[in-house]
Amino acid sequence: MALEEQVRQALGEVLVPGPMRSLVGLNLVRQVAISDQQVNIALAAAALSAEAQDWIKARTEAVVEKLPGVNKVEVEFTTVKPVEINEINHVIAVMSGKGGVGKSLVASLMAIALKRQGYEVGILDADITGPSIPRMFGITNRPSGNETGMLPVLSKSGIEVMSINLLLPSEDAAVIWRGPLISKAITQFWEEVVWGKLDCLVIDLPPGTADASLTVMQTLPISGVIVVFTPQDLTTMIVKKAVNMAQKMGTPVLGVVENMSYLYIPEIDKQVELFGQSKGEAMAQTASAPLLGRLPIDPELARLCDEGNIERYSSDTFTAFSQAIIEALPKVEAQH
Amino acid sequence: MALEEQVRQALGEVLVPGPMRSLVGLNLVRQVAISDQQVNIALAAAALSAEAQDWIKARTEAVVEKLPGVNKVEVEFTTVKPVEINEINHVIAVMSGKGGVGKSLVASLMAIALKRQGYEVGILDADITGPSIPRMFGITNRPSGNETGMLPVLSKSGIEVMSINLLLPSEDAAVIWRGPLISKAITQFWEEVVWGKLDCLVIDLPPGTADASLTVMQTLPISGVIVVFTPQDLTTMIVKKAVNMAQKMGTPVLGVVENMSYLYIPEIDKQVELFGQSKGEAMAQTASAPLLGRLPIDPELARLCDEGNIERYSSDTFTAFSQAIIEALPKVEAQH
Repeated sequence: MALEEQVRQALGEVLVPGPMRSLVGLNLVRQVAISDQQVNIALAAAALSAEAQDWIKARTEAVVEKLPGVNKVEVEFTTVKPVEINEINHVIAVMSGKGGVGKSLVASLMAIALKRQGYEVGILDADITGPSIPRMFGITNRPSGNETGMLPVLSKSGIEVMSINLLLPSEDAAVIWRGPLISKAITQFWEEVVWGKLDCLVIDLPPGTADASLTVMQTLPISGVIVVFTPQDLTTMIVKKAVNMAQKMGTPVLGVVENMSYLYIPEIDKQVELFGQSKGEAMAQTASAPLLGRLPIDPELARLCDEGNIERYSSDTFTAFSQAIIEALPKVEAQH
Repeated sequence: MALEEQVRQALGEVLVPGPMRSLVGLNLVRQVAISDQQVNIALAAAALSAEAQDWIKARTEAVVEKLPGVNKVEVEFTTVKPVEINEINHVIAVMSGKGGVGKSLVASLMAIALKRQGYEVGILDADITGPSIPRMFGITNRPSGNETGMLPVLSKSGIEVMSINLLLPSEDAAVIWRGPLISKAITQFWEEVVWGKLDCLVIDLPPGTADASLTVMQTLPISGVIVVFTPQDLTTMIVKKAVNMAQKMGTPVLGVVENMSYLYIPEIDKQVELFGQSKGEAMAQTASAPLLGRLPIDPELARLCDEGNIERYSSDTFTAFSQAIIEALPKVEAQH
């Protein structure tokens, strides 16, 4: 193996404090130059504090110096904007129009499904006034960063997460902002967060077809949207507005997911359709997109979400849903 | 009874085409002057089409001419803005922060409870991108109006309703607006709709603490808010943001309502707490406001909402909730 390749492999073992993802995963390695047994490494300084830079420099020198044929190592930090570092294969927004149908749940399950299959995944929580993601994943760390950007926080299973709730003084503090500020926050989460190399970034949109959805559809390079609904007629009426919006804006609908589709009652061994008959096929037709799953109301899942342990969830429906998600994103290829 | 009083009583029988509420109820009678057996009546022309004015003029002349001691009747229309006509005792906003917890349901049940007790009630649907009210009440009539304003549509039981969905070409058309337009629509529903005399106007807010909630709290003379939540921790976290917002803006929280509190399963005669233990008392404490009710998940109610027949609902929990609502609004007195 050539020395440069060996160096890059070694850099893949240097973890960045905070997210604890590697220099390679975060795409911070800008250049590796070798000449006469001296290795010069240029790293992006984006969002790294001075202490983090010192720590990374020391670690980098240590692992590279160990390589046979290396005499000297020079590590230099260069200023690069996060948006120039990020290499994201697919950006998928989860939307609904209607609130409380389980957008955040579906966005999270989708990320977990992809992560379990070996994909590198991030979640951008675009629900600025009602962010649910950190609670479901049990994440309370504050993202580190400086004036040039922020590093995402890593979940227990290694999913990158950025949410306004990680930046607030307390998780129930209100964000009383009008649309332009909300749009700005979402744009910053896109441009100023070091997502690094990702197979898929999942965006959890808030309810409605107003500022947040518009900003995401107009300014982010999204591959498509996943639309979530429940079987109530009242809900499907409003969810159709979201489908209409996506169609008007020329954004492909990659699939639809029915949540709260039924409740299994073990005492009587029955599935009860609490909110009416499934609208799965009808919604799939409206959206001209596949039905990716019918998720039940699952008190166990509700409990795991409240406890911050959604990543421990498994069930037969989830396995089937995972498979469908992977098939709906045909062009996503695992990075590693 | 003095003649003027008799005239006003007669005008209370003249219904306005469209909402079919009386001239008196809509507060369109600006002046009644009697001199020498001639009655001069000035009516507000606000939002009335030329045909409606002709119809009202003819009906008014007919009923007043019948009165003993009346020889001649003159009806004149004057230009008055709706906002100058409206006399609304209490404006109550139903909010949550979180979507899908049942704000529209609680707003509707609240209006129905008050109406059944003899109060005059209206609902202003401030959820511009996800309006649910017309579907739940089965209302499809288009509001009539002209360049000066609009008349609300009356529900089957006589509740005044205004919603963006009554103005769209189809109920699933998307409203893809940024915040300023949404705020403007809400302000217009307040200023340019002839609500007339109401004991209570219920405002159904969208999820979140952004433009719509801000506009309602900053520009409308609201008496207070009712906060809706469900027992999931994840939900109560976000609902607390709404409570914080109300407190920051100095808006009193009149009460809190727990929705989807439990599910009664008749086959095993059991109440199951699907989304976790009740958070009712804890939320009441957080909001420093009474717990007005714990509403169950009721498939029958979901069905009635989908059918547009929410006004047919009755249950023991609803009766108790109605009583609590009336007690939470101590200063509301029936108008008639």
